[in-house]
Amino acid sequence: MEKTGIITSFMVDTYLLVNSKTGDMDMKNAISEVRKGNIIIVYDGDDREGEADLIFHGSFVTPEKIEILRKNAGGLICVALDKKIADRFGLKFYTEILRESKFEINKMACKKTAYGDEPSFSIAVNHKNVYTGITDNDRALTIKRISDICDEDGAHEKFVGEFYAPGHVFLLIGRGIENRKGHTELALKIAEHADMPGVMVLCEMLGKGKALSMDEAKKYADKNGFAFLEGKEIW
Amino acid sequence: MEKTGIITSFMVDTYLLVNSKTGDMDMKNAISEVRKGNIIIVYDGDDREGEADLIFHGSFVTPEKIEILRKNAGGLICVALDKKIADRFGLKFYTEILRESKFEINKMACKKTAYGDEPSFSIAVNHKNVYTGITDNDRALTIKRISDICDEDGAHEKFVGEFYAPGHVFLLIGRGIENRKGHTELALKIAEHADMPGVMVLCEMLGKGKALSMDEAKKYADKNGFAFLEGKEIW
Repeated sequence: MEKTGIITSFMVDTYLLVNSKTGDMDMKNAISEVRKGNIIIVYDGDDREGEADLIFHGSFVTPEKIEILRKNAGGLICVALDKKIADRFGLKFYTEILRESKFEINKMACKKTAYGDEPSFSIAVNHKNVYTGITDNDRALTIKRISDICDEDGAHEKFVGEFYAPGHVFLLIGRGIENRKGHTELALKIAEHADMPGVMVLCEMLGKGKALSMDEAKKYADKNGFAFLEGKEIW
Repeated sequence: MEKTGIITSFMVDTYLLVNSKTGDMDMKNAISEVRKGNIIIVYDGDDREGEADLIFHGSFVTPEKIEILRKNAGGLICVALDKKIADRFGLKFYTEILRESKFEINKMACKKTAYGDEPSFSIAVNHKNVYTGITDNDRALTIKRISDICDEDGAHEKFVGEFYAPGHVFLLIGRGIENRKGHTELALKIAEHADMPGVMVLCEMLGKGKALSMDEAKKYADKNGFAFLEGKEIW
């Protein structure tokens, strides 16, 4: 296209066709949706958890979005933080904390889940201004403040001073997409592409007894106008 | 009534009226429902969390009950364990584990929530035979096995050997109703009255933005035929 400087509709159609097949258009759309603060859906892959998550950027959290996650997804509402932010906050993996403990239950620290990965969990927190911590208003407040302070000066002091554990918002630490291809890393990769801080809210979509199937998740995405991506489109 | 040996319908009516006013009939009904494996609702009180929880005994867990909790309650699905079982398993409070840790986030261990209590949280576990741990089937499996082994020989070894942390089922430790009047202790007190092991599943009922109000929780209880109790009826 650059050679002639002329773009025909045939060229555009061909470009869209080729790139939509490779998932590139889906990815661009998902990034644009995340930038707008909208919820997107990411299915990790049949060879991993086989699970679709509702995902959005932490800076756009509202009680209404928390309500959508708990009602339409049904899993745990978590916040994935990239390694840089987690380090700034002084966060450690849950398994590190448990392994280092002097109690005998330190033996229970997970080495490997059934789908092959170590878990992403760090600690669970509440902001000090919440009441119970679990309501939509409280979880939104906790997440909003995490997102607000993540790249501010004194982020570490603010984090340690303003939040307490255990709480009701589950923090996850990304291990990098090259090391792990879970929803934590997939969500953070999208934030990176969108040039936004690595603070992504996510929640597993559950079906009858099992994880919601990819087809059911796609149908839900279509019905609600949510962008849908597979993990392999993000790597 | 014992004096004459004759019970008139007037006496029975009076007895029911007096005792239903004091909540005794509600309590008996709730105990009977818990023994049958049914879900009950407990509202802690306006002066505490002001929150209603769906509650049932762990031995009766099924994926269908987990689905009811996540869809109709919407909070965290937790398992309250009495002190005896928690000690048998070697469990510690989350705050103990965090405080003992060498990491600086140990400062974040909660001293007191907004409603005045220390949290009940211990660790979160999965049974080793789950896949992701979060599905209705997986959470039911984890909870069923906790309930199964809680009073078996070798409970400690089974617990430490069969479960891993972090997982998706949140364990709570009861501090005794004389020390704390939270849902953890209220649920365990009902198990005690029912002569059942202290393994109670519970989940916070959420409304728009806030906790579901007592009136709304009562309406839901009536509609679904669930027994409804206030905390003060249990102390």
